Amino acid sequence: MQNQSWVIAKPARGEYSPDCLRWEEREVAPPGDGQVLVRTLLLSLDPTSRNWLKLESASTFLPLAVGKVMIGSAVGVVEQSHAPGFASGDLVQGLWGWELYSVASPGMLERIIPPPGVPLEAYMSIFSHVGRAAVMGMLEVGALKPTDVVAVSGAAGATGSLAAQIAKAQGCRVIGIAGGPEKCRLLLDAFGLDSAIDYKIEDVSAALTRECPGGVDLFFDNVGGSILDAVLANMAVGARIVICGAMSQYDLADPKDAYGCTNLPLMLFRRARMEGFVVPQFADRYAEFDAILHRLYADGKLLNRPHVIDGLEQAPEALKLLLTGRNDGKLMIRVSQHA
Amino acid sequence: MQNQSWVIAKPARGEYSPDCLRWEEREVAPPGDGQVLVRTLLLSLDPTSRNWLKLESASTFLPLAVGKVMIGSAVGVVEQSHAPGFASGDLVQGLWGWELYSVASPGMLERIIPPPGVPLEAYMSIFSHVGRAAVMGMLEVGALKPTDVVAVSGAAGATGSLAAQIAKAQGCRVIGIAGGPEKCRLLLDAFGLDSAIDYKIEDVSAALTRECPGGVDLFFDNVGGSILDAVLANMAVGARIVICGAMSQYDLADPKDAYGCTNLPLMLFRRARMEGFVVPQFADRYAEFDAILHRLYADGKLLNRPHVIDGLEQAPEALKLLLTGRNDGKLMIRVSQHA
Repeated sequence: MQNQSWVIAKPARGEYSPDCLRWEEREVAPPGDGQVLVRTLLLSLDPTSRNWLKLESASTFLPLAVGKVMIGSAVGVVEQSHAPGFASGDLVQGLWGWELYSVASPGMLERIIPPPGVPLEAYMSIFSHVGRAAVMGMLEVGALKPTDVVAVSGAAGATGSLAAQIAKAQGCRVIGIAGGPEKCRLLLDAFGLDSAIDYKIEDVSAALTRECPGGVDLFFDNVGGSILDAVLANMAVGARIVICGAMSQYDLADPKDAYGCTNLPLMLFRRARMEGFVVPQFADRYAEFDAILHRLYADGKLLNRPHVIDGLEQAPEALKLLLTGRNDGKLMIRVSQHA
Repeated sequence: MQNQSWVIAKPARGEYSPDCLRWEEREVAPPGDGQVLVRTLLLSLDPTSRNWLKLESASTFLPLAVGKVMIGSAVGVVEQSHAPGFASGDLVQGLWGWELYSVASPGMLERIIPPPGVPLEAYMSIFSHVGRAAVMGMLEVGALKPTDVVAVSGAAGATGSLAAQIAKAQGCRVIGIAGGPEKCRLLLDAFGLDSAIDYKIEDVSAALTRECPGGVDLFFDNVGGSILDAVLANMAVGARIVICGAMSQYDLADPKDAYGCTNLPLMLFRRARMEGFVVPQFADRYAEFDAILHRLYADGKLLNRPHVIDGLEQAPEALKLLLTGRNDGKLMIRVSQHA
């Protein structure tokens, strides 16, 4: 049985270029004892995928290297299982290779049962690492309160849009930051946010001062850099800054080109807290966070916006859409059909 | 009765100069109903005093303004009380004017009873906002654990040296960062730290990588700027960064001259937390923190190093000692004698 894989050809330093990945076709390796062979149905493309491709130990918790298959979040179906708890035909999500068939370890997998009427694309848009990041970032790391004034960067993105909607569902005033008039219109019209700031044409700091004169209580940050600095300048006393991503800083050719945040001293008198997190750190609480997502989705509080591209061969090019902000919703590759 | 006061003449922007304060002598104002007249015994000079003199709302929680008496932490004796809970002759500490006699509000005062054998200078060095900042920053904000590798900046300073000694008393490995060979020798010989980094001659980031290859678990920061950035580059997973001060950034002529921290994106995968605090935010827990300080002091774990300068008229010049790192211990002005 022939496999198709994207292998890391070189570290992706500087502006992302798809040639950091190399297409390979070879025989499918059989799963070893305690392993599972998964057929990939949907492969998630995330800003962090680009970050992982830098192959810097500081940027990932995964053993990525040149010559190895690239890893991503995915949904698939078990083809063969040599591991307890998984059977042929099971639907699973987790982290495995950017490939049609992948040998996965059970520690990286979980069985999923999409709710009736929820297609897999919708499932991946919300009930995956995407929604979990939004809900744990907002509620757990950010300790969201209904009285908070909330700002979200990358607010039209997959995670940011869910984070913003979670805050709206709690009754918060929510300001979304995004790039371009279409995205800003989406924030107001589709997600029902209270205000939208277009960072491409506005001074974000001045806009925040105008939109929330009392300051930002909770900032859910996906982009870092100058937008983070602008929010630091507009923190309320007791502000919480949740670092979910730093997308503006992933394409640097040299770490010296990184944006320098000048407003950290303000954290002192604002008694502010900034905290980074990664989804797996709360793995023992997924059930709790998933229940919140399911309830909000059932109540119509979370819009489902999958952006599906067909064909594993499109993955490296498709990642560029995400990095240039040209995706429209949660970007994913349909690698194979379920039925 | 004649008073002597330091009045704010202008905001202290750029390099600190004593002429931002103006000497005034006028009749002592009598305390109003509910107020207390205090005679100042010791006036504390702190890095934050310089920060407050910028008169930026972001830099203080006090109503400081041009033409008003400068405010500082002090120890004094009640001369007249029109407030319940305070009687003539009581020893008090709190926040009041840089002046010989000051009308204080009871909300800014607390009665103190120094332990037998502890002179007032020692009391102010340890059992004041100085020691409280160290203990609450380390234990409460920093959630210090005995297994932590701890770094402290401004480690030879009043607060930093106590913070470092608190971590040593918990059994932690502690790396102190200070400027110059004398201070670094003090860190090792007097405070018993495990390692000292002289930021004036060493690359702090490289030195931290050498001294704690597994990363810094807890950083108690008094200086901000490039040293904070160097620690960010050396965080262990789960690191906590306690922002107690940002002394390197207080003398800026223009906020645009502020150091830009480039390593914030590392907070993501290190799951790091950074948090600023001010002492009064834990006012309802002073008794708890004081008890810890008293026990550590009684056990000989906290060195007492007052640096006393006689005469209120010296205060503005003396503040320069602190800002140029030429003080030797907790800097304070002896304004009048107790007996």
